[in-house]
Amino acid sequence: MSAAAPEGNDHDFDAETRLTDNGDGSYTVDINDRWSGTASVNGGFLLANCVKALGAVVPFPDPITVSGLYLRPGNTGPSVIRTEVIRSGRTTAFGQASLLQGGKEALRVTAAFADLSAVTTEYAGLPAPKLPDPEECERLVRVLDISMAQRFEYRAPVMPGWLTGKPSGEPCMEFWMRFADGRPADTLTLPFIVDAAPPAVLELGAGSTTIELTVHVRARPSPGWLACRSYTRFVTGGYHEEDFEAWDSAGVLVAQSRQLALIRPR
Amino acid sequence: MSAAAPEGNDHDFDAETRLTDNGDGSYTVDINDRWSGTASVNGGFLLANCVKALGAVVPFPDPITVSGLYLRPGNTGPSVIRTEVIRSGRTTAFGQASLLQGGKEALRVTAAFADLSAVTTEYAGLPAPKLPDPEECERLVRVLDISMAQRFEYRAPVMPGWLTGKPSGEPCMEFWMRFADGRPADTLTLPFIVDAAPPAVLELGAGSTTIELTVHVRARPSPGWLACRSYTRFVTGGYHEEDFEAWDSAGVLVAQSRQLALIRPR
Repeated sequence: MSAAAPEGNDHDFDAETRLTDNGDGSYTVDINDRWSGTASVNGGFLLANCVKALGAVVPFPDPITVSGLYLRPGNTGPSVIRTEVIRSGRTTAFGQASLLQGGKEALRVTAAFADLSAVTTEYAGLPAPKLPDPEECERLVRVLDISMAQRFEYRAPVMPGWLTGKPSGEPCMEFWMRFADGRPADTLTLPFIVDAAPPAVLELGAGSTTIELTVHVRARPSPGWLACRSYTRFVTGGYHEEDFEAWDSAGVLVAQSRQLALIRPR
Repeated sequence: MSAAAPEGNDHDFDAETRLTDNGDGSYTVDINDRWSGTASVNGGFLLANCVKALGAVVPFPDPITVSGLYLRPGNTGPSVIRTEVIRSGRTTAFGQASLLQGGKEALRVTAAFADLSAVTTEYAGLPAPKLPDPEECERLVRVLDISMAQRFEYRAPVMPGWLTGKPSGEPCMEFWMRFADGRPADTLTLPFIVDAAPPAVLELGAGSTTIELTVHVRARPSPGWLACRSYTRFVTGGYHEEDFEAWDSAGVLVAQSRQLALIRPR
């Protein structure tokens, strides 16, 4: 694996996304039930498994853009990830991955990889969320009754409306987030993290099912909490987008994502 | 073709994206030099050709999300678009297309299609740009010295700084836009339109080369001008994102896009 991925093999994410190389560009992984949402395995987690497999076949360490099409609900159990290097250039490599479960494709991913080792911010037109220190924030426990929520720690200045039974009507959330077991975020896990928080449309009293998720990884994160903002600005015809931004402890924007999702009754 | 695509065969776009069905799920198209940017054929135009080909093989009329990876600069000349229907469900179909030029893949596209015939806006958290009527706006002529700029009409309240040699330092633009020959926008051309305006980073004195472009088509546009907003909020490590929003004449958000692009010297 690449220099961009901290070893971190003592951590849950790394232990539970261990890929077996089948020797033909495909990998086998056993998806367990500890990264699930309300209805199925979290889409960002499945995406991160595919990103990890692609990271093993391309010559650059950092996924800079990753797009996933969610074809079927993700299940637990043994899964195969087929990879393809579409093109490998001087500074950028492009790849595709398919996640197969029971012989059926559940997720198709396209991605570009590069080297983000010496990235600086040249222009920033949007500030990081202004949040009190994590120690002064409310710890959001039992964020939905789903297994994945136990794998992350979330802290917010005030309890969000949806969590106290009173959705605010404003689908925007700002909060701190990190892996619960202390694993540092890196460019391979950011495509997971952006999908691992409760959806902002909970503040509209709605749930969400992802159709497509695109993540841009903009820098390698410094260790520590991520300051996050998620928001939805349009619900049309039963679809909504969700934008997600994550800043590292040095105040650098490290990931931006947008997904198109179906509104789901809660 | 689908009900969502106005016939419009008298219009340039339709005449110049005529696909020849090769009978094996692939299509041939002759890309001419009338849709080019500064360095190569416009990426959104190439994307729209792929979307058109996918529209011919899936059973739903409207592309709701389209992602393209730009593998090589796009050239003029005969090109082949290979299509694959990944999965076709009850309400959504997923497809993939590859654009090949001289036997080399220049663009890989994944997309989901559905039916947006009866879409209403249920929540809108961002207003359309507040623009004077198009008749009261400046007509932006000779928007860059590129062929594609002649195929669209752009109007803005004031001449943008970059166009008068004084980039404003604020990479945000609001303007009206439509096809120059009067062709109405539809869900098949929106994935082109979102990439067919000058990039907002021109206001930073920079040019732009697209790596990845994802477009969410949110509604079928009503005829008339599109009110558009494009903006970049982060330039990091030589990469920038550009967000684009288009509203139709009824004030409905019809498309949202985000691309990851390389900053290019002008």
